[in-house]
Amino acid sequence: MSNNRESSVVGNEVQVVLGEYLFDCLKNEGITEIFGVPGDFNFSLLDHLEKYEGINFVNGRNELNSGYAADGYARVKGIAALITTFGVGELSACNAIAGSNSEHVPVIHIVGAPPSIDQQEHKLMHHTLMDGNFDTFRKVYEPITAYTAKVTPENAMLEIPTAIHIAKEKKKPVYLVIADDLVMKPIVMRKPMLPKSPVTNPKTLQAALAHAKQLLESSEQSVFLVDVKMMRFHLQQDALALAEAMNLPVASMMFGKGGFDESHPNFIGMYAGQFGSDAVRSFVESAQCVISIGLVWADSNTAKFSAMLDPLKLVDIQPDKVKIGQAEYRNVLAQDMIKALKSLGFKQEEPIPKFPLPYTEEKQNPEGLLSAQSYYPRIQQMLKVNDIVIGETGSFFYGLSQIRLPRGVTYITQGGWQSIGYATPSTFGACIAAPERRVLLFTGDGSLQLTAQEISSMLANDCKPIIFVLNNCGYTIEKYLNVKTENQLYNQIPNWEYTKLPEAFGESAFTAVVKTNKELDDAIKQAEGANKLCIIEMIINNPLDAPEYMVKMREYLKR
Amino acid sequence: MSNNRESSVVGNEVQVVLGEYLFDCLKNEGITEIFGVPGDFNFSLLDHLEKYEGINFVNGRNELNSGYAADGYARVKGIAALITTFGVGELSACNAIAGSNSEHVPVIHIVGAPPSIDQQEHKLMHHTLMDGNFDTFRKVYEPITAYTAKVTPENAMLEIPTAIHIAKEKKKPVYLVIADDLVMKPIVMRKPMLPKSPVTNPKTLQAALAHAKQLLESSEQSVFLVDVKMMRFHLQQDALALAEAMNLPVASMMFGKGGFDESHPNFIGMYAGQFGSDAVRSFVESAQCVISIGLVWADSNTAKFSAMLDPLKLVDIQPDKVKIGQAEYRNVLAQDMIKALKSLGFKQEEPIPKFPLPYTEEKQNPEGLLSAQSYYPRIQQMLKVNDIVIGETGSFFYGLSQIRLPRGVTYITQGGWQSIGYATPSTFGACIAAPERRVLLFTGDGSLQLTAQEISSMLANDCKPIIFVLNNCGYTIEKYLNVKTENQLYNQIPNWEYTKLPEAFGESAFTAVVKTNKELDDAIKQAEGANKLCIIEMIINNPLDAPEYMVKMREYLKR
Repeated sequence: MSNNRESSVVGNEVQVVLGEYLFDCLKNEGITEIFGVPGDFNFSLLDHLEKYEGINFVNGRNELNSGYAADGYARVKGIAALITTFGVGELSACNAIAGSNSEHVPVIHIVGAPPSIDQQEHKLMHHTLMDGNFDTFRKVYEPITAYTAKVTPENAMLEIPTAIHIAKEKKKPVYLVIADDLVMKPIVMRKPMLPKSPVTNPKTLQAALAHAKQLLESSEQSVFLVDVKMMRFHLQQDALALAEAMNLPVASMMFGKGGFDESHPNFIGMYAGQFGSDAVRSFVESAQCVISIGLVWADSNTAKFSAMLDPLKLVDIQPDKVKIGQAEYRNVLAQDMIKALKSLGFKQEEPIPKFPLPYTEEKQNPEGLLSAQSYYPRIQQMLKVNDIVIGETGSFFYGLSQIRLPRGVTYITQGGWQSIGYATPSTFGACIAAPERRVLLFTGDGSLQLTAQEISSMLANDCKPIIFVLNNCGYTIEKYLNVKTENQLYNQIPNWEYTKLPEAFGESAFTAVVKTNKELDDAIKQAEGANKLCIIEMIINNPLDAPEYMVKMREYLKR
Repeated sequence: MSNNRESSVVGNEVQVVLGEYLFDCLKNEGITEIFGVPGDFNFSLLDHLEKYEGINFVNGRNELNSGYAADGYARVKGIAALITTFGVGELSACNAIAGSNSEHVPVIHIVGAPPSIDQQEHKLMHHTLMDGNFDTFRKVYEPITAYTAKVTPENAMLEIPTAIHIAKEKKKPVYLVIADDLVMKPIVMRKPMLPKSPVTNPKTLQAALAHAKQLLESSEQSVFLVDVKMMRFHLQQDALALAEAMNLPVASMMFGKGGFDESHPNFIGMYAGQFGSDAVRSFVESAQCVISIGLVWADSNTAKFSAMLDPLKLVDIQPDKVKIGQAEYRNVLAQDMIKALKSLGFKQEEPIPKFPLPYTEEKQNPEGLLSAQSYYPRIQQMLKVNDIVIGETGSFFYGLSQIRLPRGVTYITQGGWQSIGYATPSTFGACIAAPERRVLLFTGDGSLQLTAQEISSMLANDCKPIIFVLNNCGYTIEKYLNVKTENQLYNQIPNWEYTKLPEAFGESAFTAVVKTNKELDDAIKQAEGANKLCIIEMIINNPLDAPEYMVKMREYLKR
């Protein structure tokens, strides 16, 4: 209990109220902001939070957006929390929470519920299905979270630490619902009992290690492959140390982009199956041993399963198991396996290959119209050490994946969940998480429209990201990738004047609409000196303009 | 099969593809537009719909908004459909669908899913939780819909009619998920087998009728009370005929507003417990017999349960049962009970009382600043026969409830679900449902921000509602009703320039910002002649300005 303003001493016992205990637990995890939207059933939580020292409430424009913001925040700070109201609030955030689940992002979702007495009496309360059932929405959340609990003063010291523990251990969202009258009730003091954490079985580890050693030693060229769960389970340092010790070339999967320092001499590029660099692909696929960490073999991570990794050559290190060839070694934790591999003392003698960067600068006509070939090199060039780069699902997800990131960049995308609209609120979350860092958002017109109001939240909170809006008149990626039909009406969207949004939101911003290479260069320069939120709308008139990755994908789909 | 372009004859059998059959079923229900947002897993549905004659796809700015729009459409046309994509799309619409459940609105939610082969092989596909499970999101929808099914060519002729049947019978949303590769597959022809509809048990009906007769005959003054389920189960005509035959005074509950012609001589006003008209309240509460139809005894329908109806005096007619005093008569359908009551030939001799209208026009200073006392009478006066009036949750929900509606007005609010942000997309849905009718939206600044982008959809679809935005600087109702604390920071919102939204959305509109009575009068006059979408922003500087209903509610909460 770091803060006992709301505690009181009765006899010899310190009494702590539920809200206080909850916020103490969250603060202990490093959470200094909680996202959400007010609603009458969470007033007692928010009233309490407003007086609580050390955590601020950050009000979003709607709950889906606040959920996305919490996800973005968690990707920068490790964990996040979200407060919504019963029914209407929480259900608006389902997509964001399921996204955090799919993407392994720990978010604590806290829901304020109707008073306990009304629940006990099964009264028909607003924000319910009018059936006297107050457990319906927890059931909605069961399939998409790792843990759900109805918190009371009696179980608070069990349920709250358990939920947070599971969120951190599994890197998943969890769900806590609290009746609004219980927030100020003193909790029953108990010894927290956390669920057992998995540990490595030393014998299984030895067997896995022997198997890996055999594969490594019979391999002429081995490769290291990093992916999203390496990042989420905070294994980057271990992975880096292992790659250096073994002197292995390191490729990254799409989902895992940014997990390995892309300026490191061992980094060879992105392994993106048939849609990415052919040089990296053939190098990775011809290796006799591939050591992967945190691999997710998903369609959008493997160029629609066109990546061809022979499972028999693969040492697939997962957070709590290792698969080698056809053998599965359960109860082997990734960090232990990595440490054990390092202890082998294996070092590859082959030099690390150098492959050309996808977006090398070519001399381009300044007056030329913007195209993927001209703006990606410009984006590549403007990125700086420690930037936070957020790429929306759509063209940018694919195009940015081939950019070479400077050191220390936090790279945020939804590779697997791919919910359009995610990136703008996530940018808000990232700005709140790291006010001292530069944040760049790359989004498309189609996606921006889903969650545009979160630009207002950024302006209201003095966030200063540089927002690039690719205006290619609609869901271009959808049109581009629907090879069966052409000019689908349903993929057309209204053509907004994106740079006028800040004014409608009652604030000023730096804005520019650019069509040529030079206009983009100038706008970037001005934005970098503007010290305010910036929106640069990039107008692309050629509907078939797309980064190389998408060109290859379209060709593949046509076949 | 009204339309067999996509059908083919094999041998003697007509082959109909799944998509064709689905759209035929929806068209048979009078659905001429389907709302939704495209996403790759619903492309085959949308490709097919684009070629289908008789139903248009109406593209929304995001799925929650499209869900709300479908709900608004269903309230005007009786039923609606929504198409979303797997995971990311469908989960964004949870709040809207749960709202349709709570409010008894039939919406057919159709979800496009990954190809069957990928599902069978448990592949890790984008828009999933990356666990190979493709049934997770149907499970999310189970607690909030009346029926869910995974549709295949084999079961289409069972599942689709069953789902639609249940939606119509229960007035609830239902959920159908279809793998995208199955849309163009011929379906297996079967005799549709619908679930049995409930029927009235004649003996129970006789018992209920005898009980009601006894109560009616011993009552000096009886009252008729109409509520939301009367509207949703389309019992308005039956109720009107019964009220006229029995010559009963008719009061309406808040949720049921608009269900009974408010210009009818038998209509006496809104029964809203301690927050509404005292005259109506004491009249209703002193009646010896109250016949209610479709009553929902919810907190927000009964002035926080301050309405005091003696259950022993109540004949509570529900869609499939009747409760009289402490007795419950199950398996009595409302229409049968109403018919039976009418057959009693009972006629009350007492004259229908006349109570003062809450918003009578008083001579007001044209230069005076707008206040609830001045703008509600103006709204009252501008309403016309057959308008569609949509009131957002918040101040307007309460304030508008006391307005006397002209005949034929469709009145749309979420009395029970009360999801802020609902009204703007619902207005879009209403405009699409009835392009020939005038649509008026009354919303607040706080609520509008949640779903503002649907104004863009309205502009893009040439909808011309008149939108009133009450700008009282934030979630006023929340501040107003949180009597425990004052000036909560969390209830502050950014102050947008609402009238600049159309320009940012790339379209023109009639807009006005008004502060005085005369400015509002002038703006209404101009809007009525504008023939385009109109936004009238009403600036209220007094944070404690509120309609009478809310003033009474605040006083009640303080006690």
